[in-house]
Amino acid sequence: MDVICIGSGNVATHMAQALKASGANLLQVWSRNPTHAESLARLVGAQPVTDFNAINRNADLYVIAVKDDAIGMVAAELKGINGLIVHTSGATALSILASLQNHGVLYPLQTFSKDREIDFRKIPLCIEAPDDVMLTRIESIASLLSDSVYHINSNQRKSLHLAAVFACNFVNQLYVLGNQILEHNHLDFELLRPLIMETAMKIQHELPVNVQTGPAVRGDRQTMDNHLQLLGARPDLAEIYETLSKSIKKTHS
Amino acid sequence: MDVICIGSGNVATHMAQALKASGANLLQVWSRNPTHAESLARLVGAQPVTDFNAINRNADLYVIAVKDDAIGMVAAELKGINGLIVHTSGATALSILASLQNHGVLYPLQTFSKDREIDFRKIPLCIEAPDDVMLTRIESIASLLSDSVYHINSNQRKSLHLAAVFACNFVNQLYVLGNQILEHNHLDFELLRPLIMETAMKIQHELPVNVQTGPAVRGDRQTMDNHLQLLGARPDLAEIYETLSKSIKKTHS
Repeated sequence: MDVICIGSGNVATHMAQALKASGANLLQVWSRNPTHAESLARLVGAQPVTDFNAINRNADLYVIAVKDDAIGMVAAELKGINGLIVHTSGATALSILASLQNHGVLYPLQTFSKDREIDFRKIPLCIEAPDDVMLTRIESIASLLSDSVYHINSNQRKSLHLAAVFACNFVNQLYVLGNQILEHNHLDFELLRPLIMETAMKIQHELPVNVQTGPAVRGDRQTMDNHLQLLGARPDLAEIYETLSKSIKKTHS
Repeated sequence: MDVICIGSGNVATHMAQALKASGANLLQVWSRNPTHAESLARLVGAQPVTDFNAINRNADLYVIAVKDDAIGMVAAELKGINGLIVHTSGATALSILASLQNHGVLYPLQTFSKDREIDFRKIPLCIEAPDDVMLTRIESIASLLSDSVYHINSNQRKSLHLAAVFACNFVNQLYVLGNQILEHNHLDFELLRPLIMETAMKIQHELPVNVQTGPAVRGDRQTMDNHLQLLGARPDLAEIYETLSKSIKKTHS
């Protein structure tokens, strides 16, 4: 299978490497930035390309892994190509690729960093296509890469992306705020790391609603008042404390 | 070392087992509830006790692991005992034990569930005592149980406990809300679990502020507006979305 990777960011890097590892032949890596194109191309034994006119138009698979607002522009450049063209975006509908002959979505639900290795076989791959034939083609490719392949339509994918913002980006911000409280008291973030790991591990075989602990779920108003008093100089943190405590109480009422 | 455990909840259960595993002799387990006292006592080969008058007053160590608002009452019952008496609470000052001869704090910073095994050696133990002699005694006991022992004063411990609410209880609530969004769209929580694990693992060797991703840190107003629109029927979730997005922007401004 000849593959062309459009993009050189975190998603592109991990997708291209996973495809390479599954036995695919990475023909080209496109990036507007020549250094980025070269760097990823070298990693997967492909040719770096910065000009859309230089893209080989006879590959089997084109993976679009660029910023959401650039997908439409890339799709226009790939018009007329017969190979399968997929985008990898959680927040973008299938229909953005409607002008292409064979197209679909292959969305890996994970947070990627270039420097962190990750077991791609455990990443949920969410696939969608305009018809069953295309869906079967994408499914067979997705199965080469991961043990978790889900059929997810565009509306579901948007909600999934939103849920991921809560469970990843917002969670990370709570880690940030926890660390700000520690720093203010000359305490090391190392103190919180085992707790953070255990909090995530606890819900790997349970639903989070069943394992909630802490003052809000206990209705321990005394401790909550003490905490709010400690946050006197940080009204922004006090607001988050109140809002999330209220949410916990609502969930368990 | 002869130990008496006051309490039979999650913290008491894990502490008593860790002490037992380190070679201590668990003499008695006290709980108001006889079934709970018996169940933990059996686990660690101790005598179950429900009456304070039946507590052996010549043990080396008394571990108070009861609800915060019961610590003062327990301390009053233990008055006159010469052995070392520690409480295990994050939110309670050392001074609550001031009427006891030899006392201190041994606070394990972790979220405990009775049914989950946990590597106690990796749990940060935060210790405090009124003088250096007592601190050294508590430190030598803590070192038997864990590789991470920290000297933390009462004010620091209160802030640490507050930071733990952000990094554990509030984080778990975001998992709950993520799952509510999924359920509403007939999607399985299994989809989010790998993302949640990776989000926690990412900050084990990095500070969270350095690994933030998502629409808020990118300033991607279009995606944020789409998300808020999706949350139209859930003003409570929209409020949390706005509040945490604002917090992310503030952190990275």
